[in-house]
Amino acid sequence: MSAGTVVYVLELVGLYVFATSGALMAVHKGFDIVGIVVLATATALGGGILRDVIIGDTPPAAFTNVNYLVIPVAAAVVTFFVHPVVRRLSVTVLVFDAAGLGLFCVTGTIKALDFGLGSLQAVLLGVTTAVGGGMLRDIIARETPALVQVDTDLYAIPATAGALVVAVAHRADLPMPAVATCAAVLVFAFRLVAMIRHWKAPRAWSWPPDRYPSWSRRRVR
Amino acid sequence: MSAGTVVYVLELVGLYVFATSGALMAVHKGFDIVGIVVLATATALGGGILRDVIIGDTPPAAFTNVNYLVIPVAAAVVTFFVHPVVRRLSVTVLVFDAAGLGLFCVTGTIKALDFGLGSLQAVLLGVTTAVGGGMLRDIIARETPALVQVDTDLYAIPATAGALVVAVAHRADLPMPAVATCAAVLVFAFRLVAMIRHWKAPRAWSWPPDRYPSWSRRRVR
Amino acid sequence: MSAGTVVYVLELVGLYVFATSGALMAVHKGFDIVGIVVLATATALGGGILRDVIIGDTPPAAFTNVNYLVIPVAAAVVTFFVHPVVRRLSVTVLVFDAAGLGLFCVTGTIKALDFGLGSLQAVLLGVTTAVGGGMLRDIIARETPALVQVDTDLYAIPATAGALVVAVAHRADLPMPAVATCAAVLVFAFRLVAMIRHWKAPRAWSWPPDRYPSWSRRRVR
Repeated sequence: MSAGTVVYVLELVGLYVFATSGALMAVHKGFDIVGIVVLATATALGGGILRDVIIGDTPPAAFTNVNYLVIPVAAAVVTFFVHPVVRRLSVTVLVFDAAGLGLFCVTGTIKALDFGLGSLQAVLLGVTTAVGGGMLRDIIARETPALVQVDTDLYAIPATAGALVVAVAHRADLPMPAVATCAAVLVFAFRLVAMIRHWKAPRAWSWPPDRYPSWSRRRVR
Repeated sequence: MSAGTVVYVLELVGLYVFATSGALMAVHKGFDIVGIVVLATATALGGGILRDVIIGDTPPAAFTNVNYLVIPVAAAVVTFFVHPVVRRLSVTVLVFDAAGLGLFCVTGTIKALDFGLGSLQAVLLGVTTAVGGGMLRDIIARETPALVQVDTDLYAIPATAGALVVAVAHRADLPMPAVATCAAVLVFAFRLVAMIRHWKAPRAWSWPPDRYPSWSRRRVR
Repeated sequence: MSAGTVVYVLELVGLYVFATSGALMAVHKGFDIVGIVVLATATALGGGILRDVIIGDTPPAAFTNVNYLVIPVAAAVVTFFVHPVVRRLSVTVLVFDAAGLGLFCVTGTIKALDFGLGSLQAVLLGVTTAVGGGMLRDIIARETPALVQVDTDLYAIPATAGALVVAVAHRADLPMPAVATCAAVLVFAFRLVAMIRHWKAPRAWSWPPDRYPSWSRRRVR
């Protein structure tokens, strides 16, 4: 398989897993099949559509390659029928989700750089690609976005680290395929360790001292 | 009147009714006149703007023909002053809303096909045109979107059926005006029957059996 | 300093203050540093990105000038560390926020007019530029948008007034720099007076009379 094919297959796997996370939330909230499909596709495709609309690459990739649509709908239908099985595989889902996070933040950053955006802007769009769908899922399902909450294990920060690696390497003219692979693996590993060790991002300190200083100790929750 | 004029007049009626549904929710939630106008315009125009931004037809139709703006604002102002009357007409509103659903999912699908999108993508965009505004309304008003909830009578599914008819007929090169009319009438009738008979979309089954299997019997609520 | 430089500096100040309002809400809700940065950038840049995506000027200004990104992130970091100080400056923040409101609704309207949109559409986009970020902030943070609530002092209405002045003057071919300055100052003053005197927008009247007629008397709350 060529490198392009590998990336493409990984993308489809990533979309499937992202869509599954949306579908599981919809099942959990008691939504109907329409809600399951809506939440699955929004989670899988939201970040990429947002990126493409912002850089002006319309119609977005999600609307030019039909597989990008078929996969999330398939994930929704599968989850609809066998959600208890899917739920029992939740560790597997989380691992693949971490892989998707690494992949999408890297490909998103590269695409933004290819469209001539500056480094910092490309980093922001890369992270948006990876985390935008999940935020959209939470907004539609009326949950406080996991992304902004203090009790979520690091998610956006590994993605930001990976996007930064890509942007810096792009500035230094390093060979992109190698860099992209390393950055994606870095994000993947970083996210896995963050989940295992329950790393949290700091929140702003506050007084009285029962919550002070929130980032100086591991929270036990 | 030419067919184009008929469609245009129906579109304005549809926008008026969609805007009214947004304005009524705003009144119901005690929002001020700004909230009423925001919710009315978001409900009426949200789906079409989303479609046009995604296919890259900017500025969206809502910003090129001033009537598309004037009508929702007028609906908001009328509702502001005579909302008890409007509320008493709620059956009328629902019937016109079903007509708008049929019209917008059909015109949305056709527009997406005209822009060269594939069948499945066009179906998705057609449905988005019809239901996107209502979802935006619910998100702004902090309601769980009616679209995803199990106790809402079928709404997205009639729209999907109509969009599918259009996409299949387009593939088969059938004459579009006739097909579009049939598809819109089909959606309209399907939605009316779904409301009368309280058809719901299935939700995922779950155990214990008190909720199992939720789609095998008419829910009485 | 040229007029362009003055506008640019004011824009950066406005972005800083908008971002601070987002960051403060994130701190208040106990979000982590990721949430603080997300809410700060969404509040500062959301309205402008929405405007640029709608008129088709992609990538949006927020992605072509890196300072538009750096300033909100800086505001987030500053708020993260010294939020009690920032909070004590809340009157200052509100005054600068009013200045930002005036500036962004005027520049947004002018940009939309420059892109050939009609007067009414330009007014809508100008107001969207000014208030869109705040609405996005509230949606992400799961608050009912302040914009639509009856107990918020006038916010969108001063912006609408300023945008209308710009659009009418543009029709009348008046000299734009002078008009823009007057309109921005008008919005600023209007908003300040609205805050001092607690002017509210009317909500729809309702029966029984304990809430009737809600716009005929100053609400004391």
